[in-house]
Amino acid sequence: MSTSTGTRGESVPTVHSAYPADDTAQSAGGIDISALLERGRTLSTPVLRAAVERLAPPMNTVAAYHFGWIDAQGRPSEGDGGKAVRPALALLSAEAAGAAPEVGIPGAVAVELVHNFSLLHDDLMDGDEQRRHRDTVWKVHGPAQAILVGDALFAVANEVLLESGTVEAGRAARRLTTASRKLIDGQAQDISFEHRERVTVEECLEMEGNKTGALLACAVSIGAVLGGADERTADTLEAYGYHLGLAFQAVDDLLGIWGDPVATGKQTWSDLRQRKKSLPVVAALAAGGPASERLGGLLAADAKSSDFDSFSEEEFATRAALIEEAGGREWTSQEARRQHAVAIEALDRVDMPERVRAQLVALADFVVVRKR
Amino acid sequence: MSTSTGTRGESVPTVHSAYPADDTAQSAGGIDISALLERGRTLSTPVLRAAVERLAPPMNTVAAYHFGWIDAQGRPSEGDGGKAVRPALALLSAEAAGAAPEVGIPGAVAVELVHNFSLLHDDLMDGDEQRRHRDTVWKVHGPAQAILVGDALFAVANEVLLESGTVEAGRAARRLTTASRKLIDGQAQDISFEHRERVTVEECLEMEGNKTGALLACAVSIGAVLGGADERTADTLEAYGYHLGLAFQAVDDLLGIWGDPVATGKQTWSDLRQRKKSLPVVAALAAGGPASERLGGLLAADAKSSDFDSFSEEEFATRAALIEEAGGREWTSQEARRQHAVAIEALDRVDMPERVRAQLVALADFVVVRKR
Repeated sequence: MSTSTGTRGESVPTVHSAYPADDTAQSAGGIDISALLERGRTLSTPVLRAAVERLAPPMNTVAAYHFGWIDAQGRPSEGDGGKAVRPALALLSAEAAGAAPEVGIPGAVAVELVHNFSLLHDDLMDGDEQRRHRDTVWKVHGPAQAILVGDALFAVANEVLLESGTVEAGRAARRLTTASRKLIDGQAQDISFEHRERVTVEECLEMEGNKTGALLACAVSIGAVLGGADERTADTLEAYGYHLGLAFQAVDDLLGIWGDPVATGKQTWSDLRQRKKSLPVVAALAAGGPASERLGGLLAADAKSSDFDSFSEEEFATRAALIEEAGGREWTSQEARRQHAVAIEALDRVDMPERVRAQLVALADFVVVRKR
Repeated sequence: MSTSTGTRGESVPTVHSAYPADDTAQSAGGIDISALLERGRTLSTPVLRAAVERLAPPMNTVAAYHFGWIDAQGRPSEGDGGKAVRPALALLSAEAAGAAPEVGIPGAVAVELVHNFSLLHDDLMDGDEQRRHRDTVWKVHGPAQAILVGDALFAVANEVLLESGTVEAGRAARRLTTASRKLIDGQAQDISFEHRERVTVEECLEMEGNKTGALLACAVSIGAVLGGADERTADTLEAYGYHLGLAFQAVDDLLGIWGDPVATGKQTWSDLRQRKKSLPVVAALAAGGPASERLGGLLAADAKSSDFDSFSEEEFATRAALIEEAGGREWTSQEARRQHAVAIEALDRVDMPERVRAQLVALADFVVVRKR
């Protein structure tokens, strides 16, 4: 978007000027994003740690490694636990329903557990060796532990949510479990796309809606549901989260090709190395024209090439340049802004405290300009 | 047990005389076990199939293969879907609480989905190539599909259970999710035991209680919970299911070493090939005496041997003979009877229709004498 003027009649700044390019400066419009993320982390981490401690050894240790609380030798560590956007959203979600942020904690923890369950399994399935600047669990502890600990986090997620025994907890668990199934559907679609020559932009958006949109949507509704919100309010908050997830994923797809490895903690051209049919790729292939056709020819040959695993940096750089030339980079960047705008608009349909609304808007802005 | 006289004052027949050695003849004491299992299968399968159809392609097809509904080429098949003890128990569970058997259906389906999620992942982690006389999913469709479809079945299990939105469904989901976590704990313990030289009988029983007892316990309480039973009734039904699970697993451990491959669908000496520290093994090692010591020496050497994977039938037969000589086979057989007796006794503490009680007793008898 260039500017978005919501029905609430105030103009929000353009996404790309909302923050300096360096996203360590996270304050804008009077809202301190760092503090918002930090609150989510501070309130949810003790409950998250207690949940992980329930797992039988050695799974508790393996999970602690995954979360960055210990290193591969078991020594305490101050690892990078991720951005923690989801816990921050879950607490805001409770506040959107007029409840205290603490009401959202079981939801924040449950969503974070499901998210990390999916990371553990996806890294194994995708063969990813690095995450958050460290070796992935299957690299350090083997495939069986990656499977088991993922399963255990998924189980504990529902346990944490359901143990209050309230009707609200049951409703929240139902939303979480549907989001989880969609997340798995999305991963299945993502993997199947790697083996297909052509994937439409619509198919890619559906996959990304499942893989990223559904759980982010759940994060934004789960606190409200725990706080007693009705189904319509929860659904509308999910619409914000779903489109925020699509914006988030579009940015992720850009970072997956052009991201700085120092910031992302991933390899250069990470998604190209995995033959991911991400948005920039499918948009470039759909665009037509000489660059698009040359790209299509190269990728079709790559799919059959036995040398693919030994491709040089330059060969991936060529493909990235063609994607950009065919317009895939620009299209994806615009798509992030379009989804961002739709997300913000959904907030207008929910009656919530203005401070909470402003914080949700600021978080959406942050997600779109992040560099990692 | 030789004879068990419950507090209800009636003598139940000895387990090994309850049925002929050939367990295809499944009728005793006026209760038709085949019909009971068939009812569970008939009432739960349509809901199970509908749940599986929710999965995104190709996961729905892979799951259908796993359940034996289609073959590896996708053709309709009348495969062996397993004994279906758990669905039968879940329906009886509803009846134990005075509800119609149909009330237990979502519970039966959810438990069956969790059970099959664990089979998909365990077969991959254990490297098992055969199940129910067919190639396992990871062998046919690859490791990624085994992981994904397992995850998806786990998610759908909770979805099926929670979609009614009732308080009872939330309580049932909480029990299912705790049972699922224990199931995963048990698999983690089982795997860790393979790498240890010594495991105590108590550790083995704890592992088996988690791996098999917890989900069977849940099957026996979940229908009752859906039918409105109070927590004490549900807990007592779980006690029956837990000990039944331990009896079931003791028999499984016997079949895992001495089972007929034609009946079990597994390799000869299946558990010995995987270095499983199952009950007969740990009981034999704990027994002391010459055979126990010789076995201990052999297994310790096996753990370091690089030739283990090319061991002949005879080498496994030697180990099996030593386990038997040290008393591990007889101890495990007695343990099955002990757990069976404790399970039956738990039923006396629940007020339920006599017909339902008799059917639960008959199912317990069946579990202990089965040959596969």
